[in-house]
Amino acid sequence: MTFIINEKEKIISNYINSITMENPQLIKHPNIPLVYQKNRNKQNVPILCGGGSGHEPAHIGYVGKGMLNAALFGDIFVPPSTEDILEAIHFLDSGKGVFIIIKNFEADINSFRKAIDIARKRGHQVKYVISHDDISIEPKKKFQIRGKGLAGTILLHKILGYYAQNGSDLNELEAIGFELSTQIATIGFATKSATLPKTLSPLFDLNCNEISYGIGIHGEEGYRTAEFQSSEVLANEIINKLKMHYHWEERDKYILLVNNLGTATDLEMGNFLNDIVQLLEIEGIDLKFIKTGKFMTSLDMAGISVTLCRASNLEWIEGLQSATDAFAW
Amino acid sequence: MTFIINEKEKIISNYINSITMENPQLIKHPNIPLVYQKNRNKQNVPILCGGGSGHEPAHIGYVGKGMLNAALFGDIFVPPSTEDILEAIHFLDSGKGVFIIIKNFEADINSFRKAIDIARKRGHQVKYVISHDDISIEPKKKFQIRGKGLAGTILLHKILGYYAQNGSDLNELEAIGFELSTQIATIGFATKSATLPKTLSPLFDLNCNEISYGIGIHGEEGYRTAEFQSSEVLANEIINKLKMHYHWEERDKYILLVNNLGTATDLEMGNFLNDIVQLLEIEGIDLKFIKTGKFMTSLDMAGISVTLCRASNLEWIEGLQSATDAFAW
Repeated sequence: MTFIINEKEKIISNYINSITMENPQLIKHPNIPLVYQKNRNKQNVPILCGGGSGHEPAHIGYVGKGMLNAALFGDIFVPPSTEDILEAIHFLDSGKGVFIIIKNFEADINSFRKAIDIARKRGHQVKYVISHDDISIEPKKKFQIRGKGLAGTILLHKILGYYAQNGSDLNELEAIGFELSTQIATIGFATKSATLPKTLSPLFDLNCNEISYGIGIHGEEGYRTAEFQSSEVLANEIINKLKMHYHWEERDKYILLVNNLGTATDLEMGNFLNDIVQLLEIEGIDLKFIKTGKFMTSLDMAGISVTLCRASNLEWIEGLQSATDAFAW
Repeated sequence: MTFIINEKEKIISNYINSITMENPQLIKHPNIPLVYQKNRNKQNVPILCGGGSGHEPAHIGYVGKGMLNAALFGDIFVPPSTEDILEAIHFLDSGKGVFIIIKNFEADINSFRKAIDIARKRGHQVKYVISHDDISIEPKKKFQIRGKGLAGTILLHKILGYYAQNGSDLNELEAIGFELSTQIATIGFATKSATLPKTLSPLFDLNCNEISYGIGIHGEEGYRTAEFQSSEVLANEIINKLKMHYHWEERDKYILLVNNLGTATDLEMGNFLNDIVQLLEIEGIDLKFIKTGKFMTSLDMAGISVTLCRASNLEWIEGLQSATDAFAW
């Protein structure tokens, strides 16, 4: 495995440089690890997200009109610090407060919670939503549901971004965010573990021709390892898990996001999407929105995740279809 | 290596299914391997491209407003047949003729040349441009310049699509296409060969931590194998080859397209782009347009190619910046 990089300490700063080079609508803050919109509408509540690097294009790829106003980034798999989050809140708040989307990982929650506490004491209005769409189970923790924040987080970015752009205030965003976050579920699989660029070591072991079901995005192993048979068999297992979660009925309306976890090819993404949609059609599900792409990766992991969201409000579909200049949507 | 597919015979048809499923603005022709725009403006000259599969998102990803009107696809690395091309010309011609963009590969040229000959005899006005941006050399053929069609082809799609949308006729498109095609040069490298999904065998051998410079997109080996040192060393070699080709001078205007050949990560793409742009800045090159992404792949090859185009006409930049709904631009 070769990573096309220079000094390992500069992977992230060089990447950020390339992003602002190619996207003149984005600006890197001079003092903190924050990328923000050049021309943001200060009449709307700004939406901030953040997290460790290694999940590109998340979250910087979602900074743009009708999505995030800014995204904080940490080192690989390390969330931004409390100080940086605090500084970002201070920077973004033009009197409308700040709304934050947080992925449910212990380190992230710690950093953001402390920053929000301090910011509120300093007079900033801050509300947030926690993204916890991962419905995989943790074999090492008595098969508890993992509940981490995965690719479903991107649906929060897009739909909340749409509401914020249309003038929703902090309390409205909090209510919509809460409702949305409870309707989203994600589960995926990998055929190859991610490799850490600094050590060039894989995050878990998987033999050639083996699948790990229910992996996370930081090297969390799946709940089961099996031999690869076909895309259809994979799709079946994934849809069964989602069905157990939702207990859906025929004609229920859903949003579908199929996410490339790193190095799946377009041919694989298409073949797998085809199987997923066919199975959902057999279930009688009414798919209101389908999108596939590379939204939330785990470095060079080869794998795919499937996110569904029960479309309990059809305005969410309008939100997903509305225009944005965020480069990764 | 695992490919997430079902029956190997259905890889392409399942992929095409997924594309029209996700992109309702695209239609699969019922009888031939052609994907075309649902609502095309029949007042403009239609632009057609085509080639083997295995290069996704090329070329279907470029069918859309202001780019291609339609794209033909073959099996993996196999161009469409003369009969299918002929049928596509017949289908697209609404009296304005048909303009075709052909990648310079022997089998492609054969199929397209025969189809164009027959179509002309049947009364269709057909003009074409041959994309030949590959400036790598063929060690097995006395180090001749390879001259195949690589990622630079996508610049032809976008710029010619812009002119066609603005009313250029067949002769104008031919003249612009010819001028453009001679200004584009591409060269790349790989850290891992592509694997054929049908046999699961790599197309050439490369040890871990080795680079092959100047590879093609159908398994053509590079002109030199070297140990990986850094992104900067790679960028230096690539820029030197491009400089030898162009003999540029300070303040010359160029377009830059950095292409993910398959499974490079976004972090690698960004780090490498950063090095390429820095080196071009040192050369004093005036970069008028920068774009990076997955434009023309070779299955799961890990590698990156660099395309430059001398911006001898600044209207080309407007063409590149103009809006399109093609999903891969």
